[in-house]
Amino acid sequence: MSANTKGRLLLTAQGMNSDHWTRVLASGGRDVVLEPAAGEDPSIDYAVLWRYPHGLLKRLPNLKLIFSAGAGVDHIMSDPDIHGMHANVPIVRVVAPNLTQHMVEYVLWRVMDHHRQGAFYRHQQAQRTWNDTPQPTTDRVTVGIMGLGELGRSVAAKLGALGFNLAGWSRTQHELPGVDCHAGPEGLTPFLQKTDILVVLLPLTQETEGMIDYDLLTNLRQDGPLGGPCLVNAGRGRLQKEADILRALDDGLLKEVSLDVFEREPLAEESPIWQHPRIFVTPHAAASSDPDHLGPLMVAQMEAFERGEPLKHLVDRARGY
Amino acid sequence: MSANTKGRLLLTAQGMNSDHWTRVLASGGRDVVLEPAAGEDPSIDYAVLWRYPHGLLKRLPNLKLIFSAGAGVDHIMSDPDIHGMHANVPIVRVVAPNLTQHMVEYVLWRVMDHHRQGAFYRHQQAQRTWNDTPQPTTDRVTVGIMGLGELGRSVAAKLGALGFNLAGWSRTQHELPGVDCHAGPEGLTPFLQKTDILVVLLPLTQETEGMIDYDLLTNLRQDGPLGGPCLVNAGRGRLQKEADILRALDDGLLKEVSLDVFEREPLAEESPIWQHPRIFVTPHAAASSDPDHLGPLMVAQMEAFERGEPLKHLVDRARGY
Repeated sequence: MSANTKGRLLLTAQGMNSDHWTRVLASGGRDVVLEPAAGEDPSIDYAVLWRYPHGLLKRLPNLKLIFSAGAGVDHIMSDPDIHGMHANVPIVRVVAPNLTQHMVEYVLWRVMDHHRQGAFYRHQQAQRTWNDTPQPTTDRVTVGIMGLGELGRSVAAKLGALGFNLAGWSRTQHELPGVDCHAGPEGLTPFLQKTDILVVLLPLTQETEGMIDYDLLTNLRQDGPLGGPCLVNAGRGRLQKEADILRALDDGLLKEVSLDVFEREPLAEESPIWQHPRIFVTPHAAASSDPDHLGPLMVAQMEAFERGEPLKHLVDRARGY
Repeated sequence: MSANTKGRLLLTAQGMNSDHWTRVLASGGRDVVLEPAAGEDPSIDYAVLWRYPHGLLKRLPNLKLIFSAGAGVDHIMSDPDIHGMHANVPIVRVVAPNLTQHMVEYVLWRVMDHHRQGAFYRHQQAQRTWNDTPQPTTDRVTVGIMGLGELGRSVAAKLGALGFNLAGWSRTQHELPGVDCHAGPEGLTPFLQKTDILVVLLPLTQETEGMIDYDLLTNLRQDGPLGGPCLVNAGRGRLQKEADILRALDDGLLKEVSLDVFEREPLAEESPIWQHPRIFVTPHAAASSDPDHLGPLMVAQMEAFERGEPLKHLVDRARGY
């Protein structure tokens, strides 16, 4: 530990509000720096990481704790130094209640827009056309949720309250009230075949990378009451193959899509996704990481570490999330 | 009653699926006609009315029961013959559970779209711009509901479950769990001043006609977390003054609007509303009147009448709804 009795912290916050984060993390007198000293910097005890350059952690020989500033930790797990010199450093991922709430709201918003034929009515309005289209109620529509962790379960509870039928899929079997749960590779096709609106909330791991591909999309229910299946990805961009999504849309096997995340972010200006009339784009904005909510949870874990107490919110390195 | 022991029924169904309605209403062997005989037609016992020409009822001297095919009865109450020769004919307005569900879903959809800044992100996508905007959670936003009948109460329950703060306004005082209820002319300004998203579900009466005007709109909360107030009208078109809505939008006193109903329907092709970037138009499609749900409820009331039993779902002629 540095001379200060509180560990010294490196904040890498590219694209985030670093003033705000620094103010929250430095409360109580902790040293917070935005850059390590040139070369090796043995003074850094903790790191809060977001969009940081791989190679940075090599320069921090005394790193004791790593925090992810986002809900996804794939940006950290893909760093070779995490598995090399820092293989034993605990990785903490705090998820504020507020973050879950943001995410649930985003999913409800997009599911309701697909359910109520938003794209159809926006197109009609642009044409000044006055016609309605058959509209099922929620009890005739099945939302399939991939990923049944904290986010997936919260989303299921709210969608269930709106009357949707619910199916779920996850790596291991879950039991959730009101959700028709499926698991593992053998559960995937039956899950997809009953799904009208697919909501993706999976973590990004070696097994899930690129999982939302053409084959998967063509297994979604084709004869459902909305006239075709819809996709909402609020998880991670590299879960999806964007070329396959475009192909499934063009082939008429996918009706509409909402994407908050992309294979590469920001989405390239020349991407055909921007102008596709049946894709709705938000800029990784489903849930913003609010420093006022996340910062105090991180500080509490640093203080627990300094008192020698067990840590919470640890990433399982074997699972990758 | 006509020779048939079951009363004979006139269905006026302009703009509706008259084959489907006839099939449902004629089940059990009841005579259903789409036009009365020329001149006076004493054979008609019942009328199911929707967008019918005033003057029609004068030709039905033996009319015993009137049914509204829509949730609103203003199209009937504005007919002079209703207050003249047919002043004692009961008017039945059936509201299927399904209709309430459709309406609740429409309101949730539009409220979530305003809450999650749909117009902002659609504009950004068209510009291929990658930026997020501050996003409060539902617990920082107040939805104000005008009209606390069956629809208003159902909407309040679902919006409350999503975490919104709720205010309510109605003609007479109501007590609803979780809703800050206001009533009458003196309750209107305090209600509006705390409202970020105004949801209009009022009946159309002499008192409510044109109520959604410039003065009312400028009393909505200006310093709320969404950057300006929003309006959703899912009630009746003539509750609103469309010129005033456009003026409030242009003056920056109203942020966004969703309209399902209009002063004149269909909305005229030359209306500036179609192309306004901050107005979302649906063609009176929030809740379609489904004959499979409404027809049997009407038939049940005809049968009750024929057995001399009391009627349900009666319109209160004094209140006008």
